[in-house]
Amino acid sequence: MATAAVNPDLARVRAQATFDPLQLTYFLYDGPEKTKRKRFLQNMATKEHKEQNFRRFAELSREEQYEEALRKTTYTHRRIAELGLKDQTDIFIFREVISPSEPNPFGLHEVMFVTTIEKQGTKEQREKWLPLAKRFGVIGTYAQTELGHGTFLRGLETTATYDPKTKEFVVNSPTVSAAKYWPGGLGKTANCCVVMAKLITNGQNYGMQSFLVQIRDFETHQPLPGVSVGDIGQKFGYGAMDNGFLILNNVRIPRENMLMRYAQVLEDGTFVSPKNDRLVYGSMTLIRSQIVGGCARSLAKAVTIATRYSAVRRQSEINTGQGEVQVLDFQTQQHRLFTQIASSYALTIAGRVSTTSYIKVNAQIESGNLDDMPILHALSAALKAFSSWEMMSGIEQCRLACGGHGYSLASGLPKIYVNEVPACTYEGENVVLCLQTARFLVKCYNAAEKGQQLPSMVSFLRTAKGGKSRLTEKLELDQIIAAYEHRAARQLEEANTRLQNYLNKGTKPADAWNSSSQSLVEAAVAFTHAFVVKAFIEKVTTSRLEPSLSAVLIQLCQLYALHGISSNAGQFLRGGYLSDEQLTLVENKTYELLAALRPNSVALVDAFDFPDLVLDSDLGRYDGNVYEALMEYARRSKLNQTEVHEGFYKYQKPFVESLKAQVAAQSRL
Amino acid sequence: MATAAVNPDLARVRAQATFDPLQLTYFLYDGPEKTKRKRFLQNMATKEHKEQNFRRFAELSREEQYEEALRKTTYTHRRIAELGLKDQTDIFIFREVISPSEPNPFGLHEVMFVTTIEKQGTKEQREKWLPLAKRFGVIGTYAQTELGHGTFLRGLETTATYDPKTKEFVVNSPTVSAAKYWPGGLGKTANCCVVMAKLITNGQNYGMQSFLVQIRDFETHQPLPGVSVGDIGQKFGYGAMDNGFLILNNVRIPRENMLMRYAQVLEDGTFVSPKNDRLVYGSMTLIRSQIVGGCARSLAKAVTIATRYSAVRRQSEINTGQGEVQVLDFQTQQHRLFTQIASSYALTIAGRVSTTSYIKVNAQIESGNLDDMPILHALSAALKAFSSWEMMSGIEQCRLACGGHGYSLASGLPKIYVNEVPACTYEGENVVLCLQTARFLVKCYNAAEKGQQLPSMVSFLRTAKGGKSRLTEKLELDQIIAAYEHRAARQLEEANTRLQNYLNKGTKPADAWNSSSQSLVEAAVAFTHAFVVKAFIEKVTTSRLEPSLSAVLIQLCQLYALHGISSNAGQFLRGGYLSDEQLTLVENKTYELLAALRPNSVALVDAFDFPDLVLDSDLGRYDGNVYEALMEYARRSKLNQTEVHEGFYKYQKPFVESLKAQVAAQSRL
Repeated sequence: MATAAVNPDLARVRAQATFDPLQLTYFLYDGPEKTKRKRFLQNMATKEHKEQNFRRFAELSREEQYEEALRKTTYTHRRIAELGLKDQTDIFIFREVISPSEPNPFGLHEVMFVTTIEKQGTKEQREKWLPLAKRFGVIGTYAQTELGHGTFLRGLETTATYDPKTKEFVVNSPTVSAAKYWPGGLGKTANCCVVMAKLITNGQNYGMQSFLVQIRDFETHQPLPGVSVGDIGQKFGYGAMDNGFLILNNVRIPRENMLMRYAQVLEDGTFVSPKNDRLVYGSMTLIRSQIVGGCARSLAKAVTIATRYSAVRRQSEINTGQGEVQVLDFQTQQHRLFTQIASSYALTIAGRVSTTSYIKVNAQIESGNLDDMPILHALSAALKAFSSWEMMSGIEQCRLACGGHGYSLASGLPKIYVNEVPACTYEGENVVLCLQTARFLVKCYNAAEKGQQLPSMVSFLRTAKGGKSRLTEKLELDQIIAAYEHRAARQLEEANTRLQNYLNKGTKPADAWNSSSQSLVEAAVAFTHAFVVKAFIEKVTTSRLEPSLSAVLIQLCQLYALHGISSNAGQFLRGGYLSDEQLTLVENKTYELLAALRPNSVALVDAFDFPDLVLDSDLGRYDGNVYEALMEYARRSKLNQTEVHEGFYKYQKPFVESLKAQVAAQSRL
Repeated sequence: MATAAVNPDLARVRAQATFDPLQLTYFLYDGPEKTKRKRFLQNMATKEHKEQNFRRFAELSREEQYEEALRKTTYTHRRIAELGLKDQTDIFIFREVISPSEPNPFGLHEVMFVTTIEKQGTKEQREKWLPLAKRFGVIGTYAQTELGHGTFLRGLETTATYDPKTKEFVVNSPTVSAAKYWPGGLGKTANCCVVMAKLITNGQNYGMQSFLVQIRDFETHQPLPGVSVGDIGQKFGYGAMDNGFLILNNVRIPRENMLMRYAQVLEDGTFVSPKNDRLVYGSMTLIRSQIVGGCARSLAKAVTIATRYSAVRRQSEINTGQGEVQVLDFQTQQHRLFTQIASSYALTIAGRVSTTSYIKVNAQIESGNLDDMPILHALSAALKAFSSWEMMSGIEQCRLACGGHGYSLASGLPKIYVNEVPACTYEGENVVLCLQTARFLVKCYNAAEKGQQLPSMVSFLRTAKGGKSRLTEKLELDQIIAAYEHRAARQLEEANTRLQNYLNKGTKPADAWNSSSQSLVEAAVAFTHAFVVKAFIEKVTTSRLEPSLSAVLIQLCQLYALHGISSNAGQFLRGGYLSDEQLTLVENKTYELLAALRPNSVALVDAFDFPDLVLDSDLGRYDGNVYEALMEYARRSKLNQTEVHEGFYKYQKPFVESLKAQVAAQSRL
């Protein structure tokens, strides 16, 4: 990729690989053709990024980030149109180089505003709004969350009251806590939103519906009368995004602005119920599956940075007097990094399996068969939670593995962290999602107890309980899967027993559920962990791969699975399922694998094939020339625009002089 | 504290406490007198903060933070002098209100520059430099870390070569990676540093020594010839701190600028060795003990914010139709928060025990008795690692517990996180520290195997192995301690066995150590965990407390210890030490404790007695009026200085118009 001389320590590890990383890149990106296409687009975007002299967010203030993001996003949209890119993957790849791990102020317009109109608008509404939206004449966002209300839809306070006289809805924020708060692009960018509000017509509350509310003038961009809108200030990350607030003071919109594909309000105010509102869940499931893939990719970026840097960085001796070693040689560093390499592969594969399932089930749903929807929903919920938690702790492990330099924005790691961790909270708070999955699992468990047939993905809940592990020192992959399934079944049994005990004591079902909820969350996590391990093993063992590559991926699978057993050993040991001796085998093998993977570590992260701009990291550079890059980063610091900072004259010098004068005065006394 | 009406949901939980939180505040701050003093200073500082109109870092750019920090720190120094504050606790308390969880650019001057001169300077050097330094005529920092080198002192590249002709040292950065990089205050503030450099005299390398190097003119503050110095750019946090780089191009300093209390270079260049360099370790141990207390306090702040907000926040129903409940009612939320409340108390007490031990041992050292230094050093090393890791994950749990709003800088949580997590890396990287502790433990273990007497703090390593836990459903505290000691001894035994196996196979000791290091780190953590649990239990059970308070603290102790057992269950179950049934007792009790602590949760965090300014959080306000505060925070966002952002005119409008023109052109075709 890079043409500059590569740091020799990094080059040496790269050369030690026992497999061809390009084959693994093909595996990750669906073959040579797609890889070629990917690289073509990435190279083009890299060239254009340089030509446009796009600025690095690590060096900008929050306000500059927003402005630069507008520049980037309008540029990208223009180029995507000029290049005629239609394929979502193509667009993603091009955009990722221009805006790596950065939100963009037009993002919600595309992902939520347009999609909501497409899904919930009538034919007339789609015909009216979509062409406008697609040329950004209307630019929108999706305003659901309120200052005082999030996940729980029925709690939202914004009202849309139908006035049959004028055939309008009056949209209103009745309290401080009713202000819309957080929607992306709302603060400064959007001129329109889908507002979720409580529909009131003929004096009755019909619950949440979607309304199109124009908030700014289409020409001047000034807020319209009755609209108070703005940015919500600095956040952990998301500097480029104008997350906003919106207070509506009895704003009137025409009746036609309620999205009426399902529920309707007739001219006289009569409410017409939707036929089936389960359909709405489909897109949520897709978004969650995509989040899983996104988490995997973010973790992959972080571990690419940390692994390459660990090959470059020399720090401390192992054998005294023999010179400082690459930090990659320390077992503790290998443990930190290689388990994260394994996680990033495991989550990549789990995300794909989940997306594939979505596509399959979605086709069934479109043809009216909703049977597999509950399991798909359950899986995507906990899998989103599991992968975002894994990513969150994994990125921080990678940052810590880079020592002090990991803390500099130049490392790229803080940006990845702060811009990706919202995945733990948005699109369903993780704990809430795990409990949704647990509810499904408990249902399955009780069905199984009654001898009913279970969907294949959860059938192990019926069979996996009890017994002893047959794991031997070969650490057979099928026995590893069996161990995870046993653990999941056992954790579910335990949570369910807890729940039943409360019910048997006469506790109200909702309170019994709440009192068992921590245990239920843990059961959902165990279930998901088993899914991920199984998906990883199955994918690796059933794909047609060169033996040299297959061997390494199987090692990675083993590391992922065995490390998961050690980290949760209690749940595997309980009931004597796994013996002490078996656990020792697991641990010994984990340490062996760390040493075995060391020569392949750089190749494993190289295979993700991230261009330097996507990593946006001075530590993760392909060429390993990190120190020069860090020094240049330092020199560009805004505080270095003058040799002597203004603050010296304003505060430091007067302070020092006043002390000097005091001393002089005292010595005169 | 606050006079405004308190949010009724928060007030209700506050009123449910079964103990008097003021008694707990006394316990935390050493009695009524010291509490009164603390509050007096905090109230004064709060008043002054408002009068001075100090700005909130959540609303400033990085450059503004630096400048505001200069204003704050010069103000604080002036006031401390005016008020005649001498006591370190008094100074800390006053300063914490003015600069909460914020580094200050003069920090290293006080903590490292002055202290190093005090400890390593000769009488003449102290007499020359300290008066100047104390009135900030010289303002310094401590420059050890280099771009390419950190922990490993011998790896540093900066050289100080003695020139007997001119009686000067020539200080030089020979390579890019030799640049000093990271020292706080170095970038723009300091005019002098203690530079750690390799001493070369008479052609021989005598290893690392400390040198005083002036880097900027004392009057003009311009960098001196041969000195290239500047800020290193934006970081994860530490916006207020000008961490800097320093490249020295053969800069000459007089011979008298080498700190010569121990090692010396005579006029003719003769090197004189120090008598005893172990003394240097003392201050490191103290700093690490103080970091433990700092971690406890940071976690306490985070959990105060999250707990109060969880009393205010209503979200989702438990029983359908009965309205949204306080999120504090969800067991999963209680699990998240109450375990962190317990941790913050546990670490607070562990930090104190460790500081007390330091003071005791330091007195011994001063009188020439170095016997207890190794154990103190070992304890402080792993304890610093343990507590900073606990804090790191704990703060993030608190942030996640606040949902979306936790992500806003208005919550205060991101600032606490980014400014406190460096504790995992500085003053000894955590993994490296754990391995230092492990080395000491292995030594003890082997001594014990030979039947030698062990220091009392580690004597359990000899006795705790094997057997079965006698824990009953009463969950006796002494049996809990025994369980932790057993686990620590077992983990050490396992790590040591691993190590011995390598040695027995003929592996070189250093490589054997490295190949066992992950296991050794885990042993050090288990040892430290046992120390923390024991310190917490002993403190709570031996202090004279009102029964109502004592009862709650014992619950908190139990929660801390039992949660630690569940989270590491594998290590307690192994070898059949704990039985499945005992583990079930542990888990059941944990869930019981969550429910039992709920009424006391707000009182437990109130007892930390943080003024609002110290929390610096719109979610953690004492009065619970969070939504009004968040809305005000949003309105103050810099992006709201104009209704229509400049970026609209620069990028968005031209983009939209170009698309409109295209559409018009196409429709004309």
